[in-house]
Amino acid sequence: MHRTILAWGLFLLVACAARSSIAQSHPSPGFFAETLREGRVVDLTHTFNRDTIYWPTEEGFKLVKEKAGFTDKGYYYAANRFVAAEHGGTHIDAPVHFSATGKTVDEIPLNRLIGEAAVIDVTRACKKNPDYQISIADLRRWEEAHQRQLVDVIVLLRTGYAKRWPNRKAYLGTDATGPEAVAELHFPGLAPAAAHWLTQHRSIKAVGIDTASIDYGQSKRFASHVTLFEHNVPAMENVGDMSGLPTARATIIALPMKIGGGSGGPVRVLAILPNGS
Amino acid sequence: MHRTILAWGLFLLVACAARSSIAQSHPSPGFFAETLREGRVVDLTHTFNRDTIYWPTEEGFKLVKEKAGFTDKGYYYAANRFVAAEHGGTHIDAPVHFSATGKTVDEIPLNRLIGEAAVIDVTRACKKNPDYQISIADLRRWEEAHQRQLVDVIVLLRTGYAKRWPNRKAYLGTDATGPEAVAELHFPGLAPAAAHWLTQHRSIKAVGIDTASIDYGQSKRFASHVTLFEHNVPAMENVGDMSGLPTARATIIALPMKIGGGSGGPVRVLAILPNGS
Repeated sequence: MHRTILAWGLFLLVACAARSSIAQSHPSPGFFAETLREGRVVDLTHTFNRDTIYWPTEEGFKLVKEKAGFTDKGYYYAANRFVAAEHGGTHIDAPVHFSATGKTVDEIPLNRLIGEAAVIDVTRACKKNPDYQISIADLRRWEEAHQRQLVDVIVLLRTGYAKRWPNRKAYLGTDATGPEAVAELHFPGLAPAAAHWLTQHRSIKAVGIDTASIDYGQSKRFASHVTLFEHNVPAMENVGDMSGLPTARATIIALPMKIGGGSGGPVRVLAILPNGS
Repeated sequence: MHRTILAWGLFLLVACAARSSIAQSHPSPGFFAETLREGRVVDLTHTFNRDTIYWPTEEGFKLVKEKAGFTDKGYYYAANRFVAAEHGGTHIDAPVHFSATGKTVDEIPLNRLIGEAAVIDVTRACKKNPDYQISIADLRRWEEAHQRQLVDVIVLLRTGYAKRWPNRKAYLGTDATGPEAVAELHFPGLAPAAAHWLTQHRSIKAVGIDTASIDYGQSKRFASHVTLFEHNVPAMENVGDMSGLPTARATIIALPMKIGGGSGGPVRVLAILPNGS
């Protein structure tokens, strides 16, 4: 009996010491080092190039080559300029995009851009219906599955449309451009009632969607934009393929270009997957 | 004696259980949530606006307002376009900027952009000498102070010049523009010998500096660029004020705009300060 207790005591002592030394040898940067070593970072950003999808009324992304070649001093040198609308490709809408008193893109607090992802998977519904609007019931389904509320999270709406990128017709419902093409847009979005519910009854950091707009393609008044931005909840659009993400516990880091007074801009969106996923 | 051992055993059992339950109730997203709650994120990014500093031969950042006002449907709407050179403001140089076979900005591996900051503080030397070049001795001084090598870190060169931003004359040594102004540039940089030493004898993820170039203002052949980029080590330039950072253990997250084939581009740089700093 003495020996058993003694052996247990020693075992526990050693076990605790081991835990403790691991904790001390991995300060906060270690968290990232470990995560990255295991290749668990997912880039949720589409590349900006000539195929980048913009709204039908906007021009596309333009990269203007300035230099690319060897100089007379013997070294190689390449540099470009670029022209872009704020709201195309993988980008963030700042609240001021649809709210006169909303924050500009450089003013979005960093704690809205870093946080846990709550992934609402509606790929099945969107496969059947390109005009699908994500409902309160879809959001509640996540809450029931995870036994907690959508609070302090970045809500990512996964329609499956990222896999259609950059096929303009498949992604937007039309490959026409100009003001007339807007009526031809068909892709899923967040229902205005769900946007209202999120801002009135929950408290989220930001939203993101893998379509061209947080309001569905057929929207005429952009009511989800208006509601979210009145509450300074920014929205990421044209987010990349979320199929590699768990529905909870991934960490999102979404860092927009810091355009002074901008109504939005290009954003680089990463997901760091949790341990054990 | 039995009781003492038994008590110890129980104490250790409870202590281990407590640690274990804490670990389980804080999955990886918790790390960020805690960090952010305590306001320990530093934005090391200058805002892009009309004051943004570009190379004397480049045009400045241009934001073109498209819409800002109430629509006839009753909602507010604002949107802009912008024009920028890749290499101005807080930006990253991709290796292809000075190396024909180097990676483009969209190809830079994410594990080079997230990591521990090793801050080399040379503000005192740079106050005396605007042509100061950070030496191997400066880098070794950090290693001696921290008793480890510059391995697997993002080396941040703190000259103190970020505090001069956006005063062009104080920051660049001249407020003249055009090709003739290049000869008038005076600001600190990384000595070519130090760049060589970092690539030959150490293994770093990336470098960053709070001046307009990783080579000092008077450089003619940009040898530090060439050496770093031959080894695919990207360089961030015009990084913001690092005075709030400890010299080690902060985590850098530097996410560039994902320009396909770009030689560089705007980057948003954050530092997450370690616990207890």
